[in-house]
Amino acid sequence: MSLLVVGSVAFDNVRTPHGEAAEILGGAATYFSVAASWFTPVRVVAVVGEDFDETHLQIFRDRGIDTTGLERAAGRTFRWRGEYAGNMNEARTLETQLNVFETFAPKVPASYLESEYVFLGNIDPVLQLHVRQQLPKARLVALDSMNYWITGKLDDLKKTLTAVNVLVINEGEAKMLSGQANLRRAAAAIRGLGPQILVIKRGEYGASLFTQDAIFSAPAFPLDTVQDPTGAGDTFAGGFMGHLAKTGDLSEANLRRAVIYGSVMASFAVEEFGLGGLLRLSAAQITDRFHDFKKLTHFDV
Amino acid sequence: MSLLVVGSVAFDNVRTPHGEAAEILGGAATYFSVAASWFTPVRVVAVVGEDFDETHLQIFRDRGIDTTGLERAAGRTFRWRGEYAGNMNEARTLETQLNVFETFAPKVPASYLESEYVFLGNIDPVLQLHVRQQLPKARLVALDSMNYWITGKLDDLKKTLTAVNVLVINEGEAKMLSGQANLRRAAAAIRGLGPQILVIKRGEYGASLFTQDAIFSAPAFPLDTVQDPTGAGDTFAGGFMGHLAKTGDLSEANLRRAVIYGSVMASFAVEEFGLGGLLRLSAAQITDRFHDFKKLTHFDV
Repeated sequence: MSLLVVGSVAFDNVRTPHGEAAEILGGAATYFSVAASWFTPVRVVAVVGEDFDETHLQIFRDRGIDTTGLERAAGRTFRWRGEYAGNMNEARTLETQLNVFETFAPKVPASYLESEYVFLGNIDPVLQLHVRQQLPKARLVALDSMNYWITGKLDDLKKTLTAVNVLVINEGEAKMLSGQANLRRAAAAIRGLGPQILVIKRGEYGASLFTQDAIFSAPAFPLDTVQDPTGAGDTFAGGFMGHLAKTGDLSEANLRRAVIYGSVMASFAVEEFGLGGLLRLSAAQITDRFHDFKKLTHFDV
Repeated sequence: MSLLVVGSVAFDNVRTPHGEAAEILGGAATYFSVAASWFTPVRVVAVVGEDFDETHLQIFRDRGIDTTGLERAAGRTFRWRGEYAGNMNEARTLETQLNVFETFAPKVPASYLESEYVFLGNIDPVLQLHVRQQLPKARLVALDSMNYWITGKLDDLKKTLTAVNVLVINEGEAKMLSGQANLRRAAAAIRGLGPQILVIKRGEYGASLFTQDAIFSAPAFPLDTVQDPTGAGDTFAGGFMGHLAKTGDLSEANLRRAVIYGSVMASFAVEEFGLGGLLRLSAAQITDRFHDFKKLTHFDV
C-alpha cells in the first residue's frame, strides 16, 4: 500500500571522523523515502529550490518514488552543515540555511489523498497536523519531532500528537517531551498524549517499541565501520513504515518485525556517506541482515 | 559446581536521586557472590576489618556462601562513598578508603583448590594472576578490570588476560583497553589478548557477548524504578558465572542464556539500595524475569 511522507529535502555538508562530504542530497523526506522504497511505493511531499536539478530528481525516480508532491520554489534548497565527533552519537549542527524551506506550506496532491500510511517527518507540528487532516483515509499515521518543537511549540505538538497513531522519536527527546528521566515512565506519559504506539530510537544502542501490550527492545546492528550517521533516524522510520505499509499488518508481532527492518535499513545507511548505503543495496541483502538480527538477539529459553 | 570469587568486600555510602544509604554492605565480591548464590555454591576470597561483625557474616551464611576464605585483618573494612546523578549511568566516587584492602594478599584455602569456575573480581591484576595460578583445575576463569589498572598496570593486566577465558568489562573500559572506539573492533582486539569470550556491559543499554562464532546483544530490562546502580556490574557477572557453573555447559547457546541471567540479576539489584533486591528474591522470580526477557526481545522471522 502507498506510503506518504512529508518532510525536508536538503543538501548536506557533513564531516565525521571518517571523512567529509559536500552538498550531498539529504533531508528527512529523502532518507525516509529511499529507505521505504525498498518495501512499498512511496509518495513524497516536500519543497526544493532552483538548485535541485535533474540528477537529484533522478535519484527519487530510480527508486520509483512518486514526486508529484515535490514542489519547486524560487530560491535555494534547504542546507544543513554538521559534524560528528568521537563515538558519533550526536550531530553538532554548524549551520542551517532554511532557504525555500522557511515558507514551506505542504500541499498534498489530489493523487495522494487516498494514502493509508503516512509519515509526518520532523517539521512544524502545525504543518504536520495540516497534512494529517487532509488524509481522512489514513490507517496509520506516524510522527517524528525534535527538541526545537518540544521547547518552542509544545502546545501545537501536543495537539498534533492526538491525531497520530505512532510517535518515532529519539531517547533524549522522549525524556524531554515527557519530563521523565526513566524510559518506561517516559513512554507511559507519551502514550498518554495520544500515540498508541511509541518507538524510541537509541542510536548505536538500538530501538525500543512500546505498545499497549508490551515492550520490545532491539539492539543496533554491530558494524565494523560507521562512516556517517546522518539520516539514520529517518532511514529507520522508512524501514519501519515501509514494512508496515507493505504488509498491512499492524499486529504486535509485525510491529516488532518493522522495528527490525527499520534497524536493518539504518545499519546500511550509516555504513556509507549520504544515501550511498541505501542506494547500493539489494532485496537479498535486506533479508540477509534481517536474519542476522535474529542471530544477534536470539536465545533459547 | 563450585564457583570461587576473589574481590572486595566493602561498606558503601551511596547517594542517588532516589535517596541515600550509609555504611551498607557492598563490594564486588559481595554483590557477585550473593547473585551467584541463587544458582550454585559460592566460595569467597576477600578481606574484611574488625568492624565487619556477625550480622554482616550472617548475610553470606544465609545465602550458603562459603566464607572460609574471608580473612579478618586488623583495621577497618574497605569503604566507598559515591553518588549517581541524572540518568545514573555513571558513579561519581567521592571517597575511597582502602583500609585493610590496601595490603590484601588473597589466600586460597585448601578446601577451595579444586574450584572449576572462577571469577577474578576487579583487583590488582598481579593478585588476580596469583589467585588464578593456584587453581589448576579451573575450567572457566573470568576476569573484571577497570580504567585504574588499564592506565596504571597495563602490562600486568595483559599478562593476566592471557591466563583467563572470559573478560567481563564495561563498554568504556573495553574501548580504553583496546584503543578502538568501534565496539566490534574493540572486541576483536581484546579477544586477541587472550580471552576467547568477551562480555561488554553497557549499563542501561544491556550487554553484548563476543565469541569466536558470533555476537549476541541483549537489552537491559526496562524498569520503572532504578534506585541504586551500585554493584550492577558485579551482580551481572554473578548471574552469568552462576548459571554457567550450575549447568557446566559452555556452548554458545548457554553462554547467551548466561548473559540473560546476568541481566536478570542486575535488574533486581538496581531496583533497591544495596543488596536489598538480591536478598528479597525467589527462584520463581528469577525464572519469571528470564521469561520476561524472552518476551522483551523476541520477534518471529
